[in-house]
Amino acid sequence: MTTASVDVDSARRDYAALVDRGLSLDITRGKPSPEQLDLANGLLDLPGDGAFKAEDGTDVRNYGGLKGLPELRRIFAGALQVPAGQLLAAGNSSLELMHDAVVQALLSKLPGAERRWADEPTLKFLAPVPGYDRHFALTERFGIELVPVPMTAQGPDMDAVETLVAEDSAIKGIWCVPKYSNPTGVTFSDDVVRRLATMRTAAPDFRIFWDNAYAVHHLTEDEPALADVLALATEAGNGDRVFVFGSTSKITYAGAGVGFFGASEANLAWWVGNIGKRTIGPDKVNQLRHALFLKDEDGVRAHMRKHAEIIGPKFAAVDRILTEELGDSGLATWTKPTGGYFVSLTVPKGTAKEVVRLAKEAGVALTPAGATHPHGSDPDDAVIRIAPTFPTLDVVEEAVRALAVCVRLAAAERA
Amino acid sequence: MTTASVDVDSARRDYAALVDRGLSLDITRGKPSPEQLDLANGLLDLPGDGAFKAEDGTDVRNYGGLKGLPELRRIFAGALQVPAGQLLAAGNSSLELMHDAVVQALLSKLPGAERRWADEPTLKFLAPVPGYDRHFALTERFGIELVPVPMTAQGPDMDAVETLVAEDSAIKGIWCVPKYSNPTGVTFSDDVVRRLATMRTAAPDFRIFWDNAYAVHHLTEDEPALADVLALATEAGNGDRVFVFGSTSKITYAGAGVGFFGASEANLAWWVGNIGKRTIGPDKVNQLRHALFLKDEDGVRAHMRKHAEIIGPKFAAVDRILTEELGDSGLATWTKPTGGYFVSLTVPKGTAKEVVRLAKEAGVALTPAGATHPHGSDPDDAVIRIAPTFPTLDVVEEAVRALAVCVRLAAAERA
Repeated sequence: MTTASVDVDSARRDYAALVDRGLSLDITRGKPSPEQLDLANGLLDLPGDGAFKAEDGTDVRNYGGLKGLPELRRIFAGALQVPAGQLLAAGNSSLELMHDAVVQALLSKLPGAERRWADEPTLKFLAPVPGYDRHFALTERFGIELVPVPMTAQGPDMDAVETLVAEDSAIKGIWCVPKYSNPTGVTFSDDVVRRLATMRTAAPDFRIFWDNAYAVHHLTEDEPALADVLALATEAGNGDRVFVFGSTSKITYAGAGVGFFGASEANLAWWVGNIGKRTIGPDKVNQLRHALFLKDEDGVRAHMRKHAEIIGPKFAAVDRILTEELGDSGLATWTKPTGGYFVSLTVPKGTAKEVVRLAKEAGVALTPAGATHPHGSDPDDAVIRIAPTFPTLDVVEEAVRALAVCVRLAAAERA
Repeated sequence: MTTASVDVDSARRDYAALVDRGLSLDITRGKPSPEQLDLANGLLDLPGDGAFKAEDGTDVRNYGGLKGLPELRRIFAGALQVPAGQLLAAGNSSLELMHDAVVQALLSKLPGAERRWADEPTLKFLAPVPGYDRHFALTERFGIELVPVPMTAQGPDMDAVETLVAEDSAIKGIWCVPKYSNPTGVTFSDDVVRRLATMRTAAPDFRIFWDNAYAVHHLTEDEPALADVLALATEAGNGDRVFVFGSTSKITYAGAGVGFFGASEANLAWWVGNIGKRTIGPDKVNQLRHALFLKDEDGVRAHMRKHAEIIGPKFAAVDRILTEELGDSGLATWTKPTGGYFVSLTVPKGTAKEVVRLAKEAGVALTPAGATHPHGSDPDDAVIRIAPTFPTLDVVEEAVRALAVCVRLAAAERA
């Protein structure tokens, strides 16, 4: 990207006018809007009086059932590309399942491992960047070193990934959001998925943390197919390599959905053996509630179309206003995702933090620059994540127009 | 207990007659019965359409709120003896909170600790016996050595406890079910609680795991007061010593209740800092559902009286039949709990396993003998846990009568 010249005086005048407006806008986090949450309000009085039996007769009110309700696991098996028998339904979050997968691996030897991860001298994970800050924070907390690899338009740079994992047995995992990636919106190409599933890894206990958070979160009729990583890995004799995660957090309720974990039979035996010491089973009433509300895979699909009707115009507004304000400036590029929750905006090197600071002073809250990189530090200081789902369309439009003013000023001041 | 003489032939005839009946009864686990679960069926269509705002205006459907809903924390603050501000409402289980407390202590330095527990050469917990098998399994899994101390009618033998914790800095915790203990039904005396709160411990990071699972689970009008361990410890300058756990598992639904964690401010900061990497918040919809259903502390109390009406007669039947069948035999003693979920039966040394085996062959499933002790091994082979809540009254009566036949035969064969 070439940085075009910007008139400093006009950029300053625009920014002063922006500050004078005294805005208070927030486009920081990937949260569903109240209108999206309303779509699932059918859940609020489900399962309904007298409805407490699962299809197999289980009383969902009582203890038991470490794997979750079969009828709900079946509904999501297709979308998450895990056979229902290998897909577990758990608590209200997939983040906690990812955290616990790391914890269990630290404290109990994984299938194929030589020792517990806690007993390894060094632990590393590959972090495709830009990526998801909560993934990074979770691994950083345990002293796991994050090794950045670039995201391309097809997914992680596989030449880099293959070289690193083949050489360094301390690299135990890779964070992946394979569909509508956070924050770039990229869906991994078939070739990337195949290479991840089949590549040679120095660590015998290497795991792909496949966070398929946006599996059914399409914004348009163009629904990119994602290759089946678990099937491809299994075919290649690497079936234990894949941990699949997903949830209904951005389908039904962000705070009261259901998380899923899918893996090989060996991994599941390890998982269930460990969580059996932790719990006598997940909230099966909430799982029954979800099964009754969503009904089947088509029910999920129909539900997600209603989400797209609400948030699609917000993503369109981001693109339209960035085009109007910065399209000819040469100052910025941005992604045009067809699904997921984010737009990734790239500004001139060394200005992202300043843009976020300027926006904050003008009353527009943005995700901290650097959040998309390990340790919150973007070496180019160039990536800004835009989260347009939660605010109203008006707020999105106003905030992105304000953001463009800040991008122009930061570039002008730096030039 | 003196073992009275038993007529072997008559014991054998009784047992043969029992086997002939072809029973299939189960009094193994401390699960609420369907009738008890029915008491909370008001939950099944709560919070109700349009009801998704907490009292402070929080949209419970969305992300956030690591500490849980204040209105629910307030309802349980009194029963769990933790100020509402220091009591967190979490997921559907307290067992998982105890597990995670151990895990977090293994992986992140506790307030007052010199190092992470994972970096200690040896880790030990005190296990009052007989005790709760799931507590033991949870700690055993991480290689934590369980040091048994005897349970008395006042709680753990405090002379033994004080000596052990003063001498051995590897002892990092003690498992306690302070009210209506599992399985003895004992409520810790004021003196025991005071000594636990004030005793000198060699480990600076010693923790009392205070599993107040049966805080409000009275069977009679006689409701023993439990001393406030957190207040006493705080007064003595040991406020960080106490981790309080509780849940609604045996108040509302065993599978879909709410777990609680209470502790000092320093412990809470440690806890929230760690779980903040794991979750974006608990299921607040379920917490709102519970707050609406239970309403206040009096609501909980009134609800628990309905439980007592259902399970009180089952406990009375256990005592009545054991008295009828074994009262004059000199073969057994048993507890007469006024709350909780269990009766603890003590049979002649060396016969508990045989009793359980005989009962199984006669079609009566009992909790494995030894389950009440670390590593599933009762050195006296004398304690059997009876769980009368789940089966119907008829089944309880029949199973306990069958159990008495097995106690008599095992004693006779051994004599």
